[in-house]
Amino acid sequence: MSVRVFVTGGTFDKEYDERTGKLYFEETHIPEMLRLGRCDVEVDVETLMMVDSLDMTAAQRQRVVDACRTCAQRCIVITHGTDTMVETAGALAGGVTGKTVVLTGAMVPYAFGSSDGLFNLGSALSFVQALPPGVYIAMNGRSFTWDNVRKNREEGVFERLRE
Amino acid sequence: MSVRVFVTGGTFDKEYDERTGKLYFEETHIPEMLRLGRCDVEVDVETLMMVDSLDMTAAQRQRVVDACRTCAQRCIVITHGTDTMVETAGALAGGVTGKTVVLTGAMVPYAFGSSDGLFNLGSALSFVQALPPGVYIAMNGRSFTWDNVRKNREEGVFERLRE
Amino acid sequence: MSVRVFVTGGTFDKEYDERTGKLYFEETHIPEMLRLGRCDVEVDVETLMMVDSLDMTAAQRQRVVDACRTCAQRCIVITHGTDTMVETAGALAGGVTGKTVVLTGAMVPYAFGSSDGLFNLGSALSFVQALPPGVYIAMNGRSFTWDNVRKNREEGVFERLRE
Amino acid sequence: MSVRVFVTGGTFDKEYDERTGKLYFEETHIPEMLRLGRCDVEVDVETLMMVDSLDMTAAQRQRVVDACRTCAQRCIVITHGTDTMVETAGALAGGVTGKTVVLTGAMVPYAFGSSDGLFNLGSALSFVQALPPGVYIAMNGRSFTWDNVRKNREEGVFERLRE
Repeated sequence: MSVRVFVTGGTFDKEYDERTGKLYFEETHIPEMLRLGRCDVEVDVETLMMVDSLDMTAAQRQRVVDACRTCAQRCIVITHGTDTMVETAGALAGGVTGKTVVLTGAMVPYAFGSSDGLFNLGSALSFVQALPPGVYIAMNGRSFTWDNVRKNREEGVFERLRE
Repeated sequence: MSVRVFVTGGTFDKEYDERTGKLYFEETHIPEMLRLGRCDVEVDVETLMMVDSLDMTAAQRQRVVDACRTCAQRCIVITHGTDTMVETAGALAGGVTGKTVVLTGAMVPYAFGSSDGLFNLGSALSFVQALPPGVYIAMNGRSFTWDNVRKNREEGVFERLRE
Repeated sequence: MSVRVFVTGGTFDKEYDERTGKLYFEETHIPEMLRLGRCDVEVDVETLMMVDSLDMTAAQRQRVVDACRTCAQRCIVITHGTDTMVETAGALAGGVTGKTVVLTGAMVPYAFGSSDGLFNLGSALSFVQALPPGVYIAMNGRSFTWDNVRKNREEGVFERLRE
Repeated sequence: MSVRVFVTGGTFDKEYDERTGKLYFEETHIPEMLRLGRCDVEVDVETLMMVDSLDMTAAQRQRVVDACRTCAQRCIVITHGTDTMVETAGALAGGVTGKTVVLTGAMVPYAFGSSDGLFNLGSALSFVQALPPGVYIAMNGRSFTWDNVRKNREEGVFERLRE
């Protein structure tokens, strides 16, 4: 099975700039993480953009939808900032059919010691292979359908709107 | 959904003994890894044994089967040494029905810097929720049914017997 | 030999807030770092403040000087943000005599994967035991006397004003 | 100031072999550790051998002494297994004069998460610049003269023979 991974930025790929003390984007860590996980799935990684999801424009969101629609693979993982992940999931649900699309992200940058990124990447890559076509969010070890999920900002976790 | 995790040892949970320079078992790292992954799945972890899988006796293997058969949960993850993981999967297939059982492990101890453990745990926890009843191995980001998998010792990866 | 460590904050002790995505201060990591280094020196750690060194006020700087002057130990290490470390070193030179005072810091927070903090702490603790009374900065594996050092912001290293 | 670093192996540089589950030597991590510590000291690293110090032969020990005697630098750090570090220090004291030689090592391999190696390297590099000519061991944040030190195997620390 072949999986396409689209990178859009988010906390996942934030770096610490030791000159300014600020966080910024450089290259994605996904290939390094796949090596660390000894991942043997056929994965094709493409960076679409490197943005904070709060800064993602409508045009950029549309670009994510188009990339999913036109790519050859039927299994797609998208790394994405958590703040507007639900919004992008909605856009994908309206624009992509017949494919399994799983969005994932991280609460702590992978480059920092205690990131949930590697766990989430293993989770998203697995859900995308096992779930039927549809748009999902994989966070906190769980999968959510695009229309039954919200980010609980107070607790920093994703949860269902209704059980 | 509620998941049972049975710990049996394996490379996953090896520690470095700084007095002897040898590897040994202490406590399992699974709870710490679940915290790191911000896992929000209801997980119930139980340590059955802490052994190298090459040292697992027939009686111990039977104990793993019995634990899976008698526990309340229908979704079970087992952490296990990779060397005899396939053998235990076969024993489980003969003894457990109506449940999804996923075995996973690691090539490098979690306590060491560059472990695949967190990736594999995220993967196993996701496959166990999404796959139909049966016995599986989750390694290298892939899932394998118990009767179509072998460990390729030369390359250090799991692979299908036939495609 | 007994060493006093005064903590003032700086990059050393910055944390990543996974809710806001910003860096902040919590508790100092010095005791944890000393354990990691298997440090067997008698060390007495006290947190004076937790500030970015750019935000350190004249009153706070005076508090650092007073703490060094009045403490019982003759060997003192101060963890400090790098941006105004030289300024505080100058204040200490004017206010403390007969003691060896070594300021150190980090370019990357200890809590992140790739910090220079542990290296710098080992370095500062060693210089403070071996150098004669005076005020020094220990960064990049080197020691600098307080009146012959500047931070080269472009390259992110400390260097002598004159050789 | 220019420092020579001679690598002889020891726990410092042990790796985990994920095929055999055993520890082994590959390349030294010293250059990577110096980069991590943003070390700006002029350092010239040379690997003399990669051995467990319990396996170091008399001929190999002599080679370490000769290397220290004949190298151009007056400041020398030696990375060494802890088990016979004191013995090598004695050999160096008999064979090298007019130079500051500091032996250091680690209780946990650098490649593992929780190593004391980076702390010890920062410590040894600092002591070697600040101490007068002689042969020393730098461990646990302390420096010991070659003839007043032993490894306390029960507690895993170095200590003075007499205070």
